[in-house]
Amino acid sequence: MIAKDMYELGSKRSSIRELFEYGKKRAAAIGAENVFDFSIGNPSVAPPPEVKEAILSLLTEKDAVALHGYTSAQGDYAVRKAICDDVNKRFATDFTADCFYMTAGAAASLTISLKALTVAGDEVITFAPFFPEYRVFVEAAGAKFVVVPMREPDFQIDFVQFQQCINEHTKAVIINSPNNPSGAVYTEKTICELCRILQEKEKEYGHPIYLISDEPYREIVYGDVVVPYVPNYYDDTVVCYSYSKSLSLPGERMGYILVSNKVQNAQEVYAAVCGAGRALGYVCAPSLFQMVVAKCAGMTSDLSVYAKNRDLLYRGLTELGFTCVKPDGAFYLFLKAKEKDAVAFCEKAKKYELLLVPGDDFAGPGYVRISYCVSTEQIERAMPAFAKLAAEYKK
Amino acid sequence: MIAKDMYELGSKRSSIRELFEYGKKRAAAIGAENVFDFSIGNPSVAPPPEVKEAILSLLTEKDAVALHGYTSAQGDYAVRKAICDDVNKRFATDFTADCFYMTAGAAASLTISLKALTVAGDEVITFAPFFPEYRVFVEAAGAKFVVVPMREPDFQIDFVQFQQCINEHTKAVIINSPNNPSGAVYTEKTICELCRILQEKEKEYGHPIYLISDEPYREIVYGDVVVPYVPNYYDDTVVCYSYSKSLSLPGERMGYILVSNKVQNAQEVYAAVCGAGRALGYVCAPSLFQMVVAKCAGMTSDLSVYAKNRDLLYRGLTELGFTCVKPDGAFYLFLKAKEKDAVAFCEKAKKYELLLVPGDDFAGPGYVRISYCVSTEQIERAMPAFAKLAAEYKK
Repeated sequence: MIAKDMYELGSKRSSIRELFEYGKKRAAAIGAENVFDFSIGNPSVAPPPEVKEAILSLLTEKDAVALHGYTSAQGDYAVRKAICDDVNKRFATDFTADCFYMTAGAAASLTISLKALTVAGDEVITFAPFFPEYRVFVEAAGAKFVVVPMREPDFQIDFVQFQQCINEHTKAVIINSPNNPSGAVYTEKTICELCRILQEKEKEYGHPIYLISDEPYREIVYGDVVVPYVPNYYDDTVVCYSYSKSLSLPGERMGYILVSNKVQNAQEVYAAVCGAGRALGYVCAPSLFQMVVAKCAGMTSDLSVYAKNRDLLYRGLTELGFTCVKPDGAFYLFLKAKEKDAVAFCEKAKKYELLLVPGDDFAGPGYVRISYCVSTEQIERAMPAFAKLAAEYKK
Repeated sequence: MIAKDMYELGSKRSSIRELFEYGKKRAAAIGAENVFDFSIGNPSVAPPPEVKEAILSLLTEKDAVALHGYTSAQGDYAVRKAICDDVNKRFATDFTADCFYMTAGAAASLTISLKALTVAGDEVITFAPFFPEYRVFVEAAGAKFVVVPMREPDFQIDFVQFQQCINEHTKAVIINSPNNPSGAVYTEKTICELCRILQEKEKEYGHPIYLISDEPYREIVYGDVVVPYVPNYYDDTVVCYSYSKSLSLPGERMGYILVSNKVQNAQEVYAAVCGAGRALGYVCAPSLFQMVVAKCAGMTSDLSVYAKNRDLLYRGLTELGFTCVKPDGAFYLFLKAKEKDAVAFCEKAKKYELLLVPGDDFAGPGYVRISYCVSTEQIERAMPAFAKLAAEYKK
């Protein structure tokens, strides 16, 4: 009698969550230092000290009624202005504060955008491997979810398959670069080709196809890798941003939707975003942290640990004979399983207390996701376990 | 091509918002002290000092990664336990922490509950006068919104009309006591009769009818008025709570859903709540403020200003010949307009810089809402303006 689909969503734990709970049990049984939990994408480095300083100064300087009071639904104007100025400076754009709509994190950014942009009968495309909640969010908005199979081994876009998926019902395409779970960053060439096809299809079908760029990992890239700034390549872009990873604030739920000023009928789209936020019950993004992220615009946590972890893990695993692409961004490594069935591979890994997530959850069968937002020590201590796992396949 | 209903929701400003913006313009033109803005229900008293103390101690004592990290989707266990203990103590209930699901405020509590409980074809009943977003939330969940006309002059429930609205499609009934906009508190007699009818109808139709008790104003009552604790009167109760008003934290978005342990198939309903939260993009309620409200469980802001304002306003207005019921709770007074058309009455009030919201917005035609969560001074200064408004109708 209640909503059955909601019951199912709420009662079926994701296998990531399942593994995480298993890990806690194992830790209690054999000691946390003996369990190598690579399951959860929870930042392991603290927010930059400026976050705490911002909270303290806001508590001291600002009137408490205003500090904790409602902001306007789209977010405090000064906050949006500060974020806008930072974005314009970094990406040579000419957005105004009114292009930005503050949200309670990336998930809210996505559910609100999808609710604003799609109507019944619409299709939304994404590329494997992808964050599994995309399916939940697209279907909750009432649209059809379409997946382009993954391109191996580099996890860029398979354009032949993409062209087979796109049709007159395609209302939006979601990309996520740097990518969860592959760690891949779309090259400028990939972005250009994607945008070329989208522009062509917009003309052919005579309606906008929105490119939803889900960017919680934008700041987390290694070496001299550059993440092309999507709004500069494609007009009908809507950016879904989150401070969860860049400022290590996942629990605080803070992010934004940017409706590019080049979007066709940008004001109507922005109004629909406001309406969708209202319909979903998002009155305003949490007020204190709106002001905190404004004070920290453009900053990040100390990401050097992730870089170190990536190098250590990549070198260690390839030396052990594992196959993987060196991740350019995010804090995930997508390892090729040593057998076709990644779930079976993960079960074997568990024998050595290695908790890895099967790629099947991300539409990446045959792979496993390793979250390296952990202590460097954990990676060092896990290497003998990986060695044993590798040895099992040499028998 | 985008979602037209969302565009309309986002582009049509509510008349409350409209009036608020008008008030800001008038303040700029003639000085804030000369504008009597009674439009917005934003707490005017600061949070209790314990809120700031809680933030400071959490920032000092708790590891930053944990403090700002994801909590479990239903909320941190220790937080839910603290809130549960306080509720059990105050209302002689025997809930467990797992009856509570932390949310980003009352609006989130409602959208999540409605999405969890209703399916296409279901009807949700509420009683006029009511908070206008109820319609938005019910319709966003895909259910039909049914309004029982108001009972005058006391704004209790008109049970004859209620019985005409309830039918086999009724899945839920929303009540809001203390009420926005009337300030009425449902008496125990009202609650008992409502529950009696619902129990009868549950039997007749052979399915649960959920009583959604929206309680952001529960703590804001005057004198010796008692708000009956609804779960103690009706088994299939879901409480939607918010700390926005009780702790003056509306911008921080913090509340909870309580699925009573007496609800039929309570675990399934709770799971559906978890699923709905996930589908709507609520990953977890903001983490820092979860811990803050746990530390402040059972506390409130200093509500004496509201009590003083109520008395001053009620006495002043009745002395001027206005008709209204003395509000028992919340911080609203629902005044009978001096003419049939409350919108016209509010337009006349504007001439005297009095900003009042027409009751039409709340399905309470012929009335106007006066929010007295303002400074006591504003009420004192506004009285001559109310006198002029009254005089206009004596001509």
